[in-house]
Amino acid sequence: MSTGADQGMNPYTGQPVGPPVPHATPEEVDRLATAAAAAAPALAALPLTERADLLRAVAAALETAREELVAIADSETGLGTTRLGGELTRTRVQLEMFADVVAEGSFHEAIIDHPDPNALPAPRPDLRRALIPIGPVAVFSASNFPFAFSVAGGDTASALAAGCPVVVKAHSGHPGLSVRTGQVVAAALADAPAGTFAVLHGNGAGKALVANPAIKAAGFTGSLGGGRALFDIAGSRPDPIPFYGELGSLNPAVITPGAIAARGSDVLTGFVGSFTMGAGQFCTKPGLLFLPKGHGLDDGLAAAVAQAPIGPLLNARIRKGYDEVAAALSKVNGVRAVVPPSDEAKEGFRVGPILLAVAATDLVARADELLEECFGPAALIIEYGSADELTTALDALPGALTATVHADPDTEGDLMRALLDRFADKAGRVIFDGWPTGVAVTWAMHHGGPWPATTNALHTSVGATGIRRWLRPVTYQNVPDAFLPDVLREANPLGIPRRVDGTLVV
Amino acid sequence: MSTGADQGMNPYTGQPVGPPVPHATPEEVDRLATAAAAAAPALAALPLTERADLLRAVAAALETAREELVAIADSETGLGTTRLGGELTRTRVQLEMFADVVAEGSFHEAIIDHPDPNALPAPRPDLRRALIPIGPVAVFSASNFPFAFSVAGGDTASALAAGCPVVVKAHSGHPGLSVRTGQVVAAALADAPAGTFAVLHGNGAGKALVANPAIKAAGFTGSLGGGRALFDIAGSRPDPIPFYGELGSLNPAVITPGAIAARGSDVLTGFVGSFTMGAGQFCTKPGLLFLPKGHGLDDGLAAAVAQAPIGPLLNARIRKGYDEVAAALSKVNGVRAVVPPSDEAKEGFRVGPILLAVAATDLVARADELLEECFGPAALIIEYGSADELTTALDALPGALTATVHADPDTEGDLMRALLDRFADKAGRVIFDGWPTGVAVTWAMHHGGPWPATTNALHTSVGATGIRRWLRPVTYQNVPDAFLPDVLREANPLGIPRRVDGTLVV
Repeated sequence: MSTGADQGMNPYTGQPVGPPVPHATPEEVDRLATAAAAAAPALAALPLTERADLLRAVAAALETAREELVAIADSETGLGTTRLGGELTRTRVQLEMFADVVAEGSFHEAIIDHPDPNALPAPRPDLRRALIPIGPVAVFSASNFPFAFSVAGGDTASALAAGCPVVVKAHSGHPGLSVRTGQVVAAALADAPAGTFAVLHGNGAGKALVANPAIKAAGFTGSLGGGRALFDIAGSRPDPIPFYGELGSLNPAVITPGAIAARGSDVLTGFVGSFTMGAGQFCTKPGLLFLPKGHGLDDGLAAAVAQAPIGPLLNARIRKGYDEVAAALSKVNGVRAVVPPSDEAKEGFRVGPILLAVAATDLVARADELLEECFGPAALIIEYGSADELTTALDALPGALTATVHADPDTEGDLMRALLDRFADKAGRVIFDGWPTGVAVTWAMHHGGPWPATTNALHTSVGATGIRRWLRPVTYQNVPDAFLPDVLREANPLGIPRRVDGTLVV
Repeated sequence: MSTGADQGMNPYTGQPVGPPVPHATPEEVDRLATAAAAAAPALAALPLTERADLLRAVAAALETAREELVAIADSETGLGTTRLGGELTRTRVQLEMFADVVAEGSFHEAIIDHPDPNALPAPRPDLRRALIPIGPVAVFSASNFPFAFSVAGGDTASALAAGCPVVVKAHSGHPGLSVRTGQVVAAALADAPAGTFAVLHGNGAGKALVANPAIKAAGFTGSLGGGRALFDIAGSRPDPIPFYGELGSLNPAVITPGAIAARGSDVLTGFVGSFTMGAGQFCTKPGLLFLPKGHGLDDGLAAAVAQAPIGPLLNARIRKGYDEVAAALSKVNGVRAVVPPSDEAKEGFRVGPILLAVAATDLVARADELLEECFGPAALIIEYGSADELTTALDALPGALTATVHADPDTEGDLMRALLDRFADKAGRVIFDGWPTGVAVTWAMHHGGPWPATTNALHTSVGATGIRRWLRPVTYQNVPDAFLPDVLREANPLGIPRRVDGTLVV
């Protein structure tokens, strides 16, 4: 395990910012995980209203510290105070939504089957099932959303909502913000059981955390390589634990001839805005744009890209990766540059945008070289000459978080239906006539998808149903009413939705 | 991969029965998995009523073939025609229940969020989420339930209910029954898309099946060693898939002094009946019985065991394992035999029951030697001298499918509450005043639990919610109503329960 420290770097200047934050020692990792395990029963036993109040207290504390946190965040990520302010709002709203989800109570999935003396093949007893907290959760922060997918982000909010203590492994890209956010959250949780929440630093510490016997599940947002390594540790434990990783996604978008005819310039500006947003560092960035051959949009696209305000990348490692992947993609046989790589030297971690194009037949022939995620303001246009070429190219794509269709429903119904079906099979979210960046925090949101988008296509890291990751069922058989948890007592003292003898009762 | 064959053996005689069944070649495995993938879209697209009808057709076909199937099953498993007849009924009822679950439709977990122009931090689009089939599923049969956890058992029923094609890897212990059941099921599914269902044989073929890219999830019931090996294959694929294994469980039962005073002899006969049922080859066998020191039940227990009708074990491998584990347990320091191992030679795969006893303090000191599952009619009594001794011993136990409490609610309320809480943390099903064998197929049943009971404590292999294992969410964003799947259309043409703008509507 490293005995180093995380040093924040200012992306605008490339210079250090704030003091170094030391990595946790193996002893500290074990101490925090053990404390989380000690907190678990008391946290799980809190009434739902008190658990919801804890989430609201964290939300309010973030709001109170807004100005300070946004300033630190901008100095360490270069994402700009406007975007970061919006992200803090989203993070607060997310905590408040989970408070509502907790109070509503149907996340318990309570089910009651009364005894049935006539059941086949044998009389059945009284059976009552509810979801309960799985235990301490390790949360791995992402670099690109220093609020919404970091210390107080969606994984932390949903795990606390589930009644699980959380140990966050901070991202090395914003160590100062992680420390300060951790203090704000910890203060807001002062009345929660000791051990409910902690933050630690260091990649070695993170690996030790996933391997620690006290940890019962983990959530991760980050790279395919980093996520796979932690997934493998979680799976090779003597007692494997669920590891929910959101890894990488190319987020294909298909534009049909009808969409170009109907609203070509809207499509063009929408696409450029989406793939350059946040300097192209969204996991939902549309990295692949399928256009009909002869689309005639090259000049318009180049002009729109030239207009796009693009901030610096998050850190030196991402900048290096961007330069390498962009250069490699540019050199693949058959690739032409609509917006070529820039040679101009830039301050800090700034880079120039890149827009490349290739024939659909070439994509299929060189899928291994071309289907690599390029984190940053780069995208690849794939030009198809026929519906068959399009279909064959789509079949070559890996799983994705999102997939987008722009078509004319009136004149291209069959094609549109076929694309939606194909994308439902490949992606977690299928978008019509819009763009995938911007992930609303709602009941119906699904932010997940088949590998390599995530390690587990059954679950989401955004939205109300993300809480399901941190819950496991337990069934009580013939337990007297006075000894049942409130959620399963006959009189339904919590007034929550339940399924009783097969029928949902709300 | 083996090029051998599975040979059925008659447990009553130890002699071969039926013709050998050849193992699948690598080419056959790939052909069946590929055919399942080809069937997936058409199967997923069937209306829910037609999907339910397929399940009912399989149920009816099993009923029609009852006499023939039960006879083959008895010749290969020695479980007796009464038990096997009941198990066939249970398997039929299970299929019928999943048909009802499919028709009811709330398994889709449909959620609709209408657009909200006032949402923070940004206006939100129309979002509609539903669970859809994950794709082809590999099902690994168990030896001990040749109907309910085999070719047409719970994993197959729930996967078909989810709309997923199934490739079953048959258990080598009942190859003839697997072939015949497969034919019955395939005939009942004659109208389903080609490739919807298949059975193959051979452990090597099973490993290849889990590794095959066309397979998207797997279900398994069997040993810790076999399950772990397949779990590791599933997790180390280039694209890991969910592997739901039900592995091993000791199923502790605690008897308090109050329960002994109130109903000692009922407890005694109930326990003996439960641990010897099916020759002790239930995954829910109560393998550990916690009794207060000085319980005075030795003679009664020995007499009840002597009366218990115990059939042969399933196969020579299980018999060998039973003899070895029972002998090893008998020799651990501090263990005394209430019913000692029998030296008498027995026909076929018959064995004698064993009941051992040890002090709770010794269990803690020698947990590694004593906490091994002994598949067969064996159990271990743990004698506790105090509530502290009991608690310390319970803390040493691994996760379990079930945990049972016999106590007097009127006079031992605090103790009982503490035991129920502790067991909810350790087990998937907590039973009061009953026994764990007998797993009712209902909405509220949970047949799962923390490792090593299962590979994934979030899910169940029995009951209506088992269908969730084979489903993944997809969210549609701003897709015009006419292009949405029926389950998400505004008018709710299927009439299923949904959550709309945060509120459950049934």
